Amino acid sequence: MTEAAAPVLADANVRQMLSPFGLDIEYTRAEGNALHYTDEEGREHRVVDFACGFGSLMLGHNNSEIAERAKEILDAKVPVHTQLAQHSHTNDLARALNEIIARELHTDEPYYALFGNSGAEAVEIAIKHAEFDRLQRARELLDGVEDNIAAVRDAVSDGGAQVSPEAYALAGVAGSAGLEDLVAEVRRHNEAAAATPPLFLTIEGSFHGKLASSIQLTYNEMFRLPFKSLSAQARFVPADQPDALAKIVSDERVAVLDLVVEDGVVRVVERDFPVFGAFFLEPIRGEAGIRPLSEEFARTIQQVCAELGCPVVSDEIQCGTGRSGAFFAASHIGLVGDYIILAKSLAGGIAKTGVVLVREGRYRNDFELIHSSTFGKDSFSSLIALKVIEMLEADGGAAYRAAEERGAKLKTMLEAVRADFPDVVKDVRGRGLMLGLEFHDQSEAASEIIREQTQHGYIGFAVAGYLLRKHGIRTFTTASALHTFRFEPSIYLGDEDIAQLETALRAVCGVLRRQDEKGFAVV
Amino acid sequence: MTEAAAPVLADANVRQMLSPFGLDIEYTRAEGNALHYTDEEGREHRVVDFACGFGSLMLGHNNSEIAERAKEILDAKVPVHTQLAQHSHTNDLARALNEIIARELHTDEPYYALFGNSGAEAVEIAIKHAEFDRLQRARELLDGVEDNIAAVRDAVSDGGAQVSPEAYALAGVAGSAGLEDLVAEVRRHNEAAAATPPLFLTIEGSFHGKLASSIQLTYNEMFRLPFKSLSAQARFVPADQPDALAKIVSDERVAVLDLVVEDGVVRVVERDFPVFGAFFLEPIRGEAGIRPLSEEFARTIQQVCAELGCPVVSDEIQCGTGRSGAFFAASHIGLVGDYIILAKSLAGGIAKTGVVLVREGRYRNDFELIHSSTFGKDSFSSLIALKVIEMLEADGGAAYRAAEERGAKLKTMLEAVRADFPDVVKDVRGRGLMLGLEFHDQSEAASEIIREQTQHGYIGFAVAGYLLRKHGIRTFTTASALHTFRFEPSIYLGDEDIAQLETALRAVCGVLRRQDEKGFAVV
Repeated sequence: MTEAAAPVLADANVRQMLSPFGLDIEYTRAEGNALHYTDEEGREHRVVDFACGFGSLMLGHNNSEIAERAKEILDAKVPVHTQLAQHSHTNDLARALNEIIARELHTDEPYYALFGNSGAEAVEIAIKHAEFDRLQRARELLDGVEDNIAAVRDAVSDGGAQVSPEAYALAGVAGSAGLEDLVAEVRRHNEAAAATPPLFLTIEGSFHGKLASSIQLTYNEMFRLPFKSLSAQARFVPADQPDALAKIVSDERVAVLDLVVEDGVVRVVERDFPVFGAFFLEPIRGEAGIRPLSEEFARTIQQVCAELGCPVVSDEIQCGTGRSGAFFAASHIGLVGDYIILAKSLAGGIAKTGVVLVREGRYRNDFELIHSSTFGKDSFSSLIALKVIEMLEADGGAAYRAAEERGAKLKTMLEAVRADFPDVVKDVRGRGLMLGLEFHDQSEAASEIIREQTQHGYIGFAVAGYLLRKHGIRTFTTASALHTFRFEPSIYLGDEDIAQLETALRAVCGVLRRQDEKGFAVV
Repeated sequence: MTEAAAPVLADANVRQMLSPFGLDIEYTRAEGNALHYTDEEGREHRVVDFACGFGSLMLGHNNSEIAERAKEILDAKVPVHTQLAQHSHTNDLARALNEIIARELHTDEPYYALFGNSGAEAVEIAIKHAEFDRLQRARELLDGVEDNIAAVRDAVSDGGAQVSPEAYALAGVAGSAGLEDLVAEVRRHNEAAAATPPLFLTIEGSFHGKLASSIQLTYNEMFRLPFKSLSAQARFVPADQPDALAKIVSDERVAVLDLVVEDGVVRVVERDFPVFGAFFLEPIRGEAGIRPLSEEFARTIQQVCAELGCPVVSDEIQCGTGRSGAFFAASHIGLVGDYIILAKSLAGGIAKTGVVLVREGRYRNDFELIHSSTFGKDSFSSLIALKVIEMLEADGGAAYRAAEERGAKLKTMLEAVRADFPDVVKDVRGRGLMLGLEFHDQSEAASEIIREQTQHGYIGFAVAGYLLRKHGIRTFTTASALHTFRFEPSIYLGDEDIAQLETALRAVCGVLRRQDEKGFAVV
């Protein structure tokens, strides 16, 4: 915590935000589920980490097997950067992921892999691929209209068809105008329709990254709205409300006009223009406060999107890679994404990678020729990711079973705390090692300190600081669900760690029940 | 090269593109400036790498000092992911970069650091920060107009001022309308002006990344145009044409209306609305064909942007980190960016990092509270970057001197080849270890093979395949300058490597001069 007089040039404001709550700790050592720091008096403290890299440490901090593999890669002088060459490691990684897809999602359709360097980059790649696909679908649709216009012209000039009055009316052209005026109007209408920017769909509370386009898919307005002018927009669908989804689709639908000949009559028909870029969803929404997607709503989304021809993007950046008790959290709800995105824990807590997997039926392989990333297919991160998969798949998926078993034990404890403090704890949610505990809102708390911290949005940091400094527990609320603490530990979470968390949470509940005057002050 | 029957699930199309030219090689070992592969007959080949991770390997492949440091970091169990805590390593890195900024750019203004995971991410962060800043400048401007409206109202109701006929005329309001109609018109005009999306400026041929927003700043239409509907656009200024820059600025300028009282008369004045998000430039454009920015045009850009209040972003992702013979390529042309971006070689060829440095006068520290990246401030890449800086700065900057000396020797050789083949080689450009050799266009070549390969845009790959398979040289043209080969080796480039390249280039020149019937066929 000591700091020379030199200015803080990275994160000064973040540090100022954390400091009043004792959260501005410099951790010095990390292993498994634990972090260590040395306090102002020189005492070393062990902290049980339930934040764990916001989901990046399924296999713990500095996993020794992964670290050994990293050292082997370095010692073997494996080429890390060889752009425009063959990269068997990335292909091996894609194949390993495909085997898991086949097993868990019960599909034999291959998924093609596109690599980035983070979850946010992978989301941006998915956005780009979806747009590339959308433009080609739009082109095919408009080319089809042109073919039909040619056919209609032939039929009319042959005397084999005539324009119906309804056709003129539908296109908004005077009845006496003639076919060419109708064609001109159809083209004008279609050109305007085709200029509609792509619209993305996602779910309220979603988090899909913070780069300039991915931020538009992230619900939190504080993060998103300042950047609204930068990039294509999304509509946010309330979870489990199929009617709201239907209304958004209906509101945003854009039609192009087409001409057809039926029984000697030229008619104008409307066809859906592909305005929807993609539907992004998290099988378990993290930032929203650890909220699993229901099987029913997942099915609705898949049906609606199939009808629209809009790809469903399953963002497994946080919930995937085994955390849910299966490799893919989507496998619990029968969701088979057209695209699947992985990052965070896939990189083993040391490297950085993100991958978009696109099923063959939706994959545009020309995309490979126009998208690239210098760091994107490096051998170091690909080989680390392969090691992660090898470890997860070992012993018939012991890691998934551990996630399930440790998660169940942790959840049982959280439920017990809730049962004892129903006045304080509102809900316990989640699956496997992705759990959330929601406190009741304290905006009207009797304690002035707790009330004001809640009203100013600081209560989460205050409790986090208390948990850390008094109980050696590291966790945070999410930024979008200020009363929900997240628990995303590694599979190496011990029983004693759970016990330590229980003691800590019961203490927090006690403070809230008693409306302790001092609140959670630690510094 | 052997490949099981299983489908290629990563990069299949890229591999197909490379294969006819013998470029689909799997490299097995890399060290310093060399890559190794084993051919179809089991023979091992050493390749001198002039591509070197497209600028990521200033310190060579698998630099042993960096690898040792990486192993130390792993052995010490340094916490890699501790989001929302103190990160002294990233601050140390920011300070080290600030020392170099002060020395090379002769400024004592601090630069604040924002971290991402790649060059493209850093560009996206710069775009977001520029937009965050622009909106606040817009807000300040419009708030100022509101203050002036209030003052004008007071002055008019006091009888201290009256509206000039010119004011009504300038705002397009009938002269008899009265102050409130004028105010309404000013507000209506300003609201429309404020809805103008941000416009970015950059230079023709520029490359600033390939994510959904950064791609809009990348000149190559094949890469950019399919994604035009996704994100805010840029105008591309031809290099060294101040008049063209002035015209673009004048064309795109957006004014808001303001009211002032002068000598008892209310006048309407125009003020520049901040429509320009930022001017992105590379001190040496890589993808454009290795083209250093002239000192004169750099000065013009800085003057124009200062007048507009538009930040200048110096993208040193490829040309920075010592490659030019100084840490910052901008230092050779007296360019002091408001933002400076680094990535590629900063990560030492193993890790992945990108950083945006923003000078204090343009930095909005609230940005830290709304932008973040899970992988972005990890200790592993920050400590590797610190090691890279330590190595570059050692012995009074021996690495910069090596870049300059090795680069000069390489350039002298390229110039000699050009002198001997002026009919074949058009130009040699660049600085330090960032050099380009441009061949004359072969679109009208006598050899049918060479002519067709040129016309189809494949000649660069054909020559690259020939250089690789016949001469053990790895290099490519850029995608935007199809006749310019790039040479961006590490500082460990040997005299014998330069000699090997010379032999290879003279052979290429011979083929082109003779218009060899077989062209560059190798497979």
